Amino acid sequence: MTRLSEYLLPTEKQPPADAEAISHKLMVRAGLIRQMGAGMWTWLPAGWRVHQRVVAIVREEMDAIGGQEMLMPVLQPAEPWRKTGRLEIDELFKLTDRKGSELVLAMTHEEAVTFHVAQLVRSYRDLPLILYHFQVKERDEPRPRAGVLRTREFIMKDAYTFDRDQAGMEERYALHVGAYDRMMDRTGLRWYRVEGDVGMMGGLGAHEYMAPCQAGEDEVVLGEGYAANAEVALRTPGVERDGEAYTRDGVALTVEPAIEIGNIFKLGTRYSEPLGARYLDEQGEEKEIWMASYGIGPARIVAAAVEQFADEHGICWPRALAPFAVHLVALGKAGTRERDACDELYTTLRDGGVDVLYDDRDLGPGEKFADAELLGCPLRLTVGRRSLESGEIEVQRRRGREAAPPLALHGERASLLAAVDELWRSLP
Amino acid sequence: MTRLSEYLLPTEKQPPADAEAISHKLMVRAGLIRQMGAGMWTWLPAGWRVHQRVVAIVREEMDAIGGQEMLMPVLQPAEPWRKTGRLEIDELFKLTDRKGSELVLAMTHEEAVTFHVAQLVRSYRDLPLILYHFQVKERDEPRPRAGVLRTREFIMKDAYTFDRDQAGMEERYALHVGAYDRMMDRTGLRWYRVEGDVGMMGGLGAHEYMAPCQAGEDEVVLGEGYAANAEVALRTPGVERDGEAYTRDGVALTVEPAIEIGNIFKLGTRYSEPLGARYLDEQGEEKEIWMASYGIGPARIVAAAVEQFADEHGICWPRALAPFAVHLVALGKAGTRERDACDELYTTLRDGGVDVLYDDRDLGPGEKFADAELLGCPLRLTVGRRSLESGEIEVQRRRGREAAPPLALHGERASLLAAVDELWRSLP
Repeated sequence: MTRLSEYLLPTEKQPPADAEAISHKLMVRAGLIRQMGAGMWTWLPAGWRVHQRVVAIVREEMDAIGGQEMLMPVLQPAEPWRKTGRLEIDELFKLTDRKGSELVLAMTHEEAVTFHVAQLVRSYRDLPLILYHFQVKERDEPRPRAGVLRTREFIMKDAYTFDRDQAGMEERYALHVGAYDRMMDRTGLRWYRVEGDVGMMGGLGAHEYMAPCQAGEDEVVLGEGYAANAEVALRTPGVERDGEAYTRDGVALTVEPAIEIGNIFKLGTRYSEPLGARYLDEQGEEKEIWMASYGIGPARIVAAAVEQFADEHGICWPRALAPFAVHLVALGKAGTRERDACDELYTTLRDGGVDVLYDDRDLGPGEKFADAELLGCPLRLTVGRRSLESGEIEVQRRRGREAAPPLALHGERASLLAAVDELWRSLP
Repeated sequence: MTRLSEYLLPTEKQPPADAEAISHKLMVRAGLIRQMGAGMWTWLPAGWRVHQRVVAIVREEMDAIGGQEMLMPVLQPAEPWRKTGRLEIDELFKLTDRKGSELVLAMTHEEAVTFHVAQLVRSYRDLPLILYHFQVKERDEPRPRAGVLRTREFIMKDAYTFDRDQAGMEERYALHVGAYDRMMDRTGLRWYRVEGDVGMMGGLGAHEYMAPCQAGEDEVVLGEGYAANAEVALRTPGVERDGEAYTRDGVALTVEPAIEIGNIFKLGTRYSEPLGARYLDEQGEEKEIWMASYGIGPARIVAAAVEQFADEHGICWPRALAPFAVHLVALGKAGTRERDACDELYTTLRDGGVDVLYDDRDLGPGEKFADAELLGCPLRLTVGRRSLESGEIEVQRRRGREAAPPLALHGERASLLAAVDELWRSLP
């Protein structure tokens, strides 16, 4: 059902009073998200479509490197968190059940996955493993802000690898670098992979995937063959902060604000040790399993795409993430010949497999065009009275707001679909 | 990746010590699920595939009646729950954040969806709406039991409809009855739709979808043109409990234990009233919105399928839910001619789009066959030394364990795939 007259797309002329980030303003105004409480957000239908486009890309690339999808619970016993020393983290939500047992709400799933692997893996034959899931995470975030950029609940794809030794871990890690690079390219975002901070995860090394944009809370420091999180950069010998700039040995480095959209960690035996995840090697000797973990936040990728490509009229989705490929605008009121022509075009596109949102509402052209620009689907097709005279469907590319050559209104069905497909493929 | 040598399928010869329900025993033994704590379960890769088959069926049928998918949070402010009077429900998990604010973990989403609709819907033009999501639910269940049948966390598809009046609500409700009937038929389960209890949801009427099986905690009372939940039946004039049997006016009614796998409720204005969900009608008069809600538990459908069709050797999936269509067993060790032939068959099937799990492990035939019967994929193909002599692939249908006519090992690729497809379509 993609008739706007029946679709829940509550667009707004004004952004929320407390919104500063572009993505916060535009995602609310375009009817993609709504807040239920501080840091607690609902994805409305059009927003959820975008979110799930990211999920589909991530899933495909994870499966391509041999990832096995599963699902681990959010609600967990506190015990494994006590063993790893993470029970005391402030961001971890703790609660008790009706019997007084201590429970936590998982903020990541190292404890859960290692708990299972400790029971399931016996020998070197059971390794390596790449396990992943998409699951809700909960964090008692002190300062939820910027729409879906910093929330108390969000979906994360987290993957975990299990290897016999460090060399195996490095191999699995390299596989993930490749998969993550491909995911990022496919989203259509501008992004950097930088040296990261191991932070609360612990471990032997990390990389962060960063999307440069104004709303970014992090800073990426870039030089010739060098890219790092600013915190990491400052620990690098020779890098100093000089006001707003950074230098390496006196050479100026570029600094960009950026959103962290993914992070990957070499954990080593940080979790397998306290949780007893061991295996028997070929000599029958007991060894600890080597781990790494790999997170990615679809919501942040969505927000980063809004930040990077929006103009003063609204969102401009990269085509891989757009909620719909085509936003079809009917200018004629119900009962007019131009409306009938547009209805017919809608049916042709829909039945031809084009992902089309049809604005069939009884509103004026101004409101309809404004909503189309706000929502930001890559192609806008318009049929009005003029179309009947000229026999042409008006076409606009959202990014840059440039008119494209019109399509024939009364042409062959197959050639119309082919022309739309060609236009689509030409988009960024 | 569906080579068993690389796949996490930890089968067990013995069921968990505390397991009574067949589905609990077999789902653990077949490597589909593992427990992290009381009522907190992880879906391992093969189990998750089955779960997601149910999700795909439910999503298709919801979309077909005009449902709009979205996502609402699990973590929620307590306030809307206070307004509806449900904050005091014992099963509702309550917690406080680091600032001392009261939060809850949603057990269903009437409060959330009505909170949003109260803000988003203005006029009769915005109605009707069918909104749904798949989301984790949390319940402080006093007696978690029977594997995934009664847990503290589970995924539910919950849908909510919003209408101008009671007639609209009845129309939307009837649409859902149709969609639910189709979902149930597609799963391959035996099921009943019975008159249900409104319970903690409140409202004007309800139906339950019940899957009869031994592990069922509910009872379905069946008579000529009559089907009801036992609790409801006892409130019907003329129905009495007489030991283990029920009568209507002295006529014996059949009673079957059953699992509740779905439930639908006519809520009326039970939630729109306290949460202020109103609209302006065509006369500009303010009216309350009429609601209904519709739940379905994929995990319970999976467990019910195990309960209904298992035999003494393991699970027998209906084909709509099977983790894999074909379980391919290689009898030859790596390096033998029969193993090469089986490898080639695997590639042919996989590239031909057949959903195949390949047992390429270095184990004896006994263990391999036992695992195949435990996991319960509908078709088992076997290639061993005898296959080279006869030129035949051995075929067994899991349900009933009957041999099917063998397939040609060295035939045309296309005719092999067509034969597998025909076999598949002949299955229940």
